[in-house]
Amino acid sequence: MSFTHIDEQGQAIMVDVSGKPETSREAQARARLQLPDAVVSALRDETIPKGDVLGTARIAGIQAVKKCSELIPLCHPLPVTKAAVTFDWDRDELVIVCSVKTRGVTGVEMEALTGASVAALTVYDMCKAIDKGITFDVSLVSKSGGKSGDWHA
Amino acid sequence: MSFTHIDEQGQAIMVDVSGKPETSREAQARARLQLPDAVVSALRDETIPKGDVLGTARIAGIQAVKKCSELIPLCHPLPVTKAAVTFDWDRDELVIVCSVKTRGVTGVEMEALTGASVAALTVYDMCKAIDKGITFDVSLVSKSGGKSGDWHA
Amino acid sequence: MSFTHIDEQGQAIMVDVSGKPETSREAQARARLQLPDAVVSALRDETIPKGDVLGTARIAGIQAVKKCSELIPLCHPLPVTKAAVTFDWDRDELVIVCSVKTRGVTGVEMEALTGASVAALTVYDMCKAIDKGITFDVSLVSKSGGKSGDWHA
Amino acid sequence: MSFTHIDEQGQAIMVDVSGKPETSREAQARARLQLPDAVVSALRDETIPKGDVLGTARIAGIQAVKKCSELIPLCHPLPVTKAAVTFDWDRDELVIVCSVKTRGVTGVEMEALTGASVAALTVYDMCKAIDKGITFDVSLVSKSGGKSGDWHA
Amino acid sequence: MSFTHIDEQGQAIMVDVSGKPETSREAQARARLQLPDAVVSALRDETIPKGDVLGTARIAGIQAVKKCSELIPLCHPLPVTKAAVTFDWDRDELVIVCSVKTRGVTGVEMEALTGASVAALTVYDMCKAIDKGITFDVSLVSKSGGKSGDWHA
Amino acid sequence: MSFTHIDEQGQAIMVDVSGKPETSREAQARARLQLPDAVVSALRDETIPKGDVLGTARIAGIQAVKKCSELIPLCHPLPVTKAAVTFDWDRDELVIVCSVKTRGVTGVEMEALTGASVAALTVYDMCKAIDKGITFDVSLVSKSGGKSGDWHA
Repeated sequence: MSFTHIDEQGQAIMVDVSGKPETSREAQARARLQLPDAVVSALRDETIPKGDVLGTARIAGIQAVKKCSELIPLCHPLPVTKAAVTFDWDRDELVIVCSVKTRGVTGVEMEALTGASVAALTVYDMCKAIDKGITFDVSLVSKSGGKSGDWHA
Repeated sequence: MSFTHIDEQGQAIMVDVSGKPETSREAQARARLQLPDAVVSALRDETIPKGDVLGTARIAGIQAVKKCSELIPLCHPLPVTKAAVTFDWDRDELVIVCSVKTRGVTGVEMEALTGASVAALTVYDMCKAIDKGITFDVSLVSKSGGKSGDWHA
Repeated sequence: MSFTHIDEQGQAIMVDVSGKPETSREAQARARLQLPDAVVSALRDETIPKGDVLGTARIAGIQAVKKCSELIPLCHPLPVTKAAVTFDWDRDELVIVCSVKTRGVTGVEMEALTGASVAALTVYDMCKAIDKGITFDVSLVSKSGGKSGDWHA
Repeated sequence: MSFTHIDEQGQAIMVDVSGKPETSREAQARARLQLPDAVVSALRDETIPKGDVLGTARIAGIQAVKKCSELIPLCHPLPVTKAAVTFDWDRDELVIVCSVKTRGVTGVEMEALTGASVAALTVYDMCKAIDKGITFDVSLVSKSGGKSGDWHA
Repeated sequence: MSFTHIDEQGQAIMVDVSGKPETSREAQARARLQLPDAVVSALRDETIPKGDVLGTARIAGIQAVKKCSELIPLCHPLPVTKAAVTFDWDRDELVIVCSVKTRGVTGVEMEALTGASVAALTVYDMCKAIDKGITFDVSLVSKSGGKSGDWHA
Repeated sequence: MSFTHIDEQGQAIMVDVSGKPETSREAQARARLQLPDAVVSALRDETIPKGDVLGTARIAGIQAVKKCSELIPLCHPLPVTKAAVTFDWDRDELVIVCSVKTRGVTGVEMEALTGASVAALTVYDMCKAIDKGITFDVSLVSKSGGKSGDWHA
């Protein structure tokens, strides 16, 4: 078992994907925020204006998808053909799902994970004045396309 | 209880901090990666060259600290005066801590959380060929300085 | 009458502001969109989901304020302390106002103008499938602070 | 009539263009600056060194074309294959035209409009010490290629 | 003999490459650092912890490859498919080689030269506290692919 | 002798400058391009339109000064208060000097070196169709301000 981004000398490299064929690729990643009660109440209280909390996080996530190869040093730049960020409640957890598509030579797992993470960070930013004890976890939900085929969590 | 980044009409705003005094501020955030066995083995196996996995993640995290206000829409730009990223093992979890300092009018919690998240995403990127089932959680460890005072998780 | 960003040889320069005192500065810029009827109807029709059109443009404008010195070659980087973007209707024109503050050695006119322009471009982007004949004009509304004092359109 | 960047729930989305064929695409946008007399005189006075005013604005416009998908949240990234910015006088108005080409799955209207806008903002920046009453308007001149076909103002 | 990035009026332009065929392209550039004795000693002394000096420069170089079209105004954006940075000693000179590949309509000479330059600047940054008299020179080693064919220094 | 950007464990760090006083700082860096005859002739031939070659390189250099902390991983962000790029001929060498000022807690050597390097890369880009054998060397000319005092090459 070895690391694809590390050459034989143990040095980081952006691996050569010149010869790989372009295929349709898709990935979904999820961030789940564990929110203290006061934050849940504020986000769910209909009397508090907050229309833009999730809308702002959605835009931040979509823009982060496009910045992925700038943030993750060994990621290849990719022409993203779709990016979407959705929000759902699972009891007191806010569940963010980021879906990304491309037609290219590498997958879009990192793009989806980056989008979900930055959307979660943006929710944190907008709620941190209420309670700084917000936490979130991040994971890949699924990917399809490419030589390594499909994957589901 | 209300949202500081939302005005009375429920619209997102980068709040006015013109009148706030500059003080020394510090924050620490943590990302913990839950690694499948094969990834732990590869990262701990002395026979596999991997010197640059954590080194690359560290640089990615430090650079992300400086990009925070570009990623998080309502964050104020800040003159970061220190950024460090460390790695430790807690059994099979890889624990990343990102520490940030500034002297300014707003805190550096978002900078620390962004640095820790991007460092974790970079580790994911470099290990995902071994196993895509890596997950990570992110939280604030502590912050000091500013009107809201000290906070610890 | 001469150009402050051009030296005696006619060459572009980012002028020396090292000796200037830091003062509170503020500026407001406006973009007005002239919208074809079909776009006005769509934006005002309560039956069409469009909550995020203006919300997205607002976030784009605020983020552009922070990118001003990256876009305008001879602008000095500034620690923006407030950025807000508002929308109003003036008959069939959509009026965007971008307000910016800083405490620094140069003014924030360019930041406000850039924010208003990018918010207008974002509205164009989201409505262009309905009609590409949207136009917009951009102007400074007011500025205060600094050696050149206050100015109103 | 509905918004292509908004899904059925009224939420912003970077729409899926995975299935669209790549075609040659072209767009031209125009910014016209209404210049106070003192600015016109300075720009036309042969005795004032100013060679770089328009040259600087041209470079700023070309670079902004490449930054379009970073500035406009729901724009798809595109491999720009040509970008040019020209200047002409129409009486006392300075007319900027930005022309962009690509071979891709989405059009380059936003790229051309962004380039024209940032070139105009740069002229404003370099002339604002003479008179802050400069205004400019922005519009699409033409586009060709893609499913929606040709369009002229 | 004339300049390809300058039109007939002597004005900068990002030239039209729409009609050019996509081919495999490759380039290598080199930066050589002339290091004062104290810097050489520190870099070669096994007793000083410095594992990350070259590792940091490598990551900086790889990321700069991806930023090339943002830094060099008339460069076309390109989907880089490989980027690597290596280090070698030639007596007291540290030799950095940056190798880049793409499949596209323009070459990657500028990407390779930018990567080598930024890697060298990063080494300078990390050694400048020891001696500021470090210098470096930059040149193209080779390129292949495209209409102009192969080239070697 | 040790490395200031490396901690005791040999790990890269953006060092803590929180306690350092703000002082006026200045630096000058130089890039010298060794140009093949055909390039010298083209640049000096009055009959070839090329007004924008050096003008474009100047703008690229000034913008790179502002991007320094984004390119060089361990550089602190700084509020640049002046940036200028000049060109001179020394026989057949084109000499670029980049001058930078700030009032801050760290020096601007890296900003000046980055500006000079990117200006040189831009000249290379615009002349490479004539001859790819252009080389350039980069060095610090002088710096002043800060605890380490003045330095001249």
